[in-house]
Amino acid sequence: MAHHAELIAVGTELLLGSIVNTDAQMLSQALAGLGINVYYHTVVGDNPQRLAQVLEQAKGRADLIITTGGLGPTCDDLTKQVVAAAFGRKLVFHEESAQRIRSYFAHRGRSMTENNLQQAMLPEGCTVLSNDWGTAPGCAWEQDGITVVMLPGPPRECRAMLEHRVLPYLREKGEGEILSRTLCLFGMGESAIEAQLWSEMERMTNPTLAPYAKEGSAELRITAKGSSREECEALIAPVEQALRKRFGALIYGADVKDLTEVSCRLLLEQKVTLATAESCTGGMIAQRITDLSGVSAVFKGGVVCYTNEVKRDIVGVPEALLTEYGAVSEPVCRALAENIRIKLGAQLGLSVTGVAGPDSDDRGNPVGLIFVGLSDGAHTWVRELHLGQNRGQNRNFAALTGFDMVRRYLTGLPVE
Amino acid sequence: MAHHAELIAVGTELLLGSIVNTDAQMLSQALAGLGINVYYHTVVGDNPQRLAQVLEQAKGRADLIITTGGLGPTCDDLTKQVVAAAFGRKLVFHEESAQRIRSYFAHRGRSMTENNLQQAMLPEGCTVLSNDWGTAPGCAWEQDGITVVMLPGPPRECRAMLEHRVLPYLREKGEGEILSRTLCLFGMGESAIEAQLWSEMERMTNPTLAPYAKEGSAELRITAKGSSREECEALIAPVEQALRKRFGALIYGADVKDLTEVSCRLLLEQKVTLATAESCTGGMIAQRITDLSGVSAVFKGGVVCYTNEVKRDIVGVPEALLTEYGAVSEPVCRALAENIRIKLGAQLGLSVTGVAGPDSDDRGNPVGLIFVGLSDGAHTWVRELHLGQNRGQNRNFAALTGFDMVRRYLTGLPVE
Repeated sequence: MAHHAELIAVGTELLLGSIVNTDAQMLSQALAGLGINVYYHTVVGDNPQRLAQVLEQAKGRADLIITTGGLGPTCDDLTKQVVAAAFGRKLVFHEESAQRIRSYFAHRGRSMTENNLQQAMLPEGCTVLSNDWGTAPGCAWEQDGITVVMLPGPPRECRAMLEHRVLPYLREKGEGEILSRTLCLFGMGESAIEAQLWSEMERMTNPTLAPYAKEGSAELRITAKGSSREECEALIAPVEQALRKRFGALIYGADVKDLTEVSCRLLLEQKVTLATAESCTGGMIAQRITDLSGVSAVFKGGVVCYTNEVKRDIVGVPEALLTEYGAVSEPVCRALAENIRIKLGAQLGLSVTGVAGPDSDDRGNPVGLIFVGLSDGAHTWVRELHLGQNRGQNRNFAALTGFDMVRRYLTGLPVE
Repeated sequence: MAHHAELIAVGTELLLGSIVNTDAQMLSQALAGLGINVYYHTVVGDNPQRLAQVLEQAKGRADLIITTGGLGPTCDDLTKQVVAAAFGRKLVFHEESAQRIRSYFAHRGRSMTENNLQQAMLPEGCTVLSNDWGTAPGCAWEQDGITVVMLPGPPRECRAMLEHRVLPYLREKGEGEILSRTLCLFGMGESAIEAQLWSEMERMTNPTLAPYAKEGSAELRITAKGSSREECEALIAPVEQALRKRFGALIYGADVKDLTEVSCRLLLEQKVTLATAESCTGGMIAQRITDLSGVSAVFKGGVVCYTNEVKRDIVGVPEALLTEYGAVSEPVCRALAENIRIKLGAQLGLSVTGVAGPDSDDRGNPVGLIFVGLSDGAHTWVRELHLGQNRGQNRNFAALTGFDMVRRYLTGLPVE
């Protein structure tokens, strides 16, 4: 079974930054699922010399080499020629692939230029990976203990070929499983988490434990290797349990996308409706909620109350509060949460008001002072944040705090 | 001056496919703009041996090496140690960086764990690239004819460091001048532009012309090399003129960040106030406007009217229109734009209503049908869009269309 994989993407457009190498991400995720370690991604242009050098080196350090791109019909598509040469194979004409290419054009009522048949030239003795999603077939073979796989570059074709051609091909050779579980935390930074877990992480070998920073929140990934999925799960379970015991309410989910999705899922499951009143986040919370389709069942809408007039006239914050305490204050945040839920007829009202920066407000409130409020009619909770100077980070953290308060409310945890 | 660049991204999360290497794309585009060829992207994990090997090889084939990632405070952040060692430098404590890190935490009222100060250990004699967007500083130096640059991995930080630290640093070293001018277009795709300009682009050598796709809009970059800035400008001017003649109103700016900023700048310059009523964009427009600080002078706020009730009760759309035409219709879009400007006391009202997808609405309107409206009280313009199936892309394009209508209105161009 392959243990050390290298992914080689061929294409000058990648080196120009015209496109991003999503094929590498896709393949890496799939190989991790097979328990194959990917040690290197390499991107090289449509240049035979440099590609040949990259291949030589990959042969020396990898036992699975997967190339993407450069299989097309144009003159700068030279991956097959160079890879075949690197492994001392000639390209031979593959009639079945030629037929597929001809019918591909026929089905689309397009005339085929001769250069398209170049794509039917494949390394002698290879396993042809037929391409039902484009014209260029892929191929694979094993030689000198190295498995070589070539795939087309267009992500849509690459993904389909991976799923329907490569994974079955690799699974046959595979043995063993790898499984990851990612715990997501809000309210504690990556470095603080690591400081706590340092000694454990050092000692652990299987499963392993690694923290990752994630815009405003943090992730803890547990990765186990075993002979079966069940064995991996048995290795992960006690570690997850211990982490949950240690971090408790800070953990907002396992293998989840983000706090927005987690809290919106809870709203949908419990059929609880929400309305928002946003000052300094300026619609960020509403925008993230509405990124999810189907959320209209629980999201009534919101008001971006960027001025005192809108806070007063549209949301209904009493003038007295605004004049006495100012817009950036606990009482106004409270009033925003309480009034927006009534105005929009929602069960929950979520509000944000603060100084995102870079300038302090007219009352001299410091940059980073932000209030986040949640009201259910019976009770209203307000969190007071003291953040940094970065406007974008402040807005993001305030939005996350709002989602975390919703998450805590709906799971019966202390909201403040 | 550097000619052959290699980008080395360090991070196991890249090899696991947890994240995609967008830093490489961003850096590649910027280096192309400087006329520096990028020959290799390499991704390696948080492993000192493998990183050391990758560096050895990069030293042999590149005269500009830029690393991204692995500068953080945790134990698997080892880029600085390994790179410094590869170039025979020791890491020394940089007090100013330590101060920045301490105040970063102080401002957030968070306690700083000691491991964070690791980030203030930097290669002896390097130019410190201070990080105003996160905690980990970058650094750069030249040695044995090779320029070495280290940048933090988080894309937001990497982008800011590139623009404000690395490009100025590299420009200083460039013998001769390289000047880029980027024309930004909305309303025409990259490939359509390329099809129109292909023959010219092929012929041109100095300046060169390259189109780039940019979420929903497109960029045309003119890059000139010369002995002086004036010479470069003289080379660029006629090309820019010709392009402006050809694409006219589609060009919303040159060397500008995006349409949001362009239209908000115009609002601020002309002191014209705006209010928004967003259905399917769900606050995306308001959120983008409020990304810019100081915009409160012209942005009154907005309503995210995700339900008919909110469209009726808060924005004031007549029930009759909603029942007769439905929420996704030209008349309702028109009413939203007209009413929101009155409700919030703004000069301009901007509205969006449509079917973002993936499901069509209860009236069977197709996914991708979106109306965008702009009203100044005297007149109301409505654009009808027929977009694709991708919810995110549809929301983004609708938001861009709204900003483009504001831009056209304030520059005296036809709005529809």
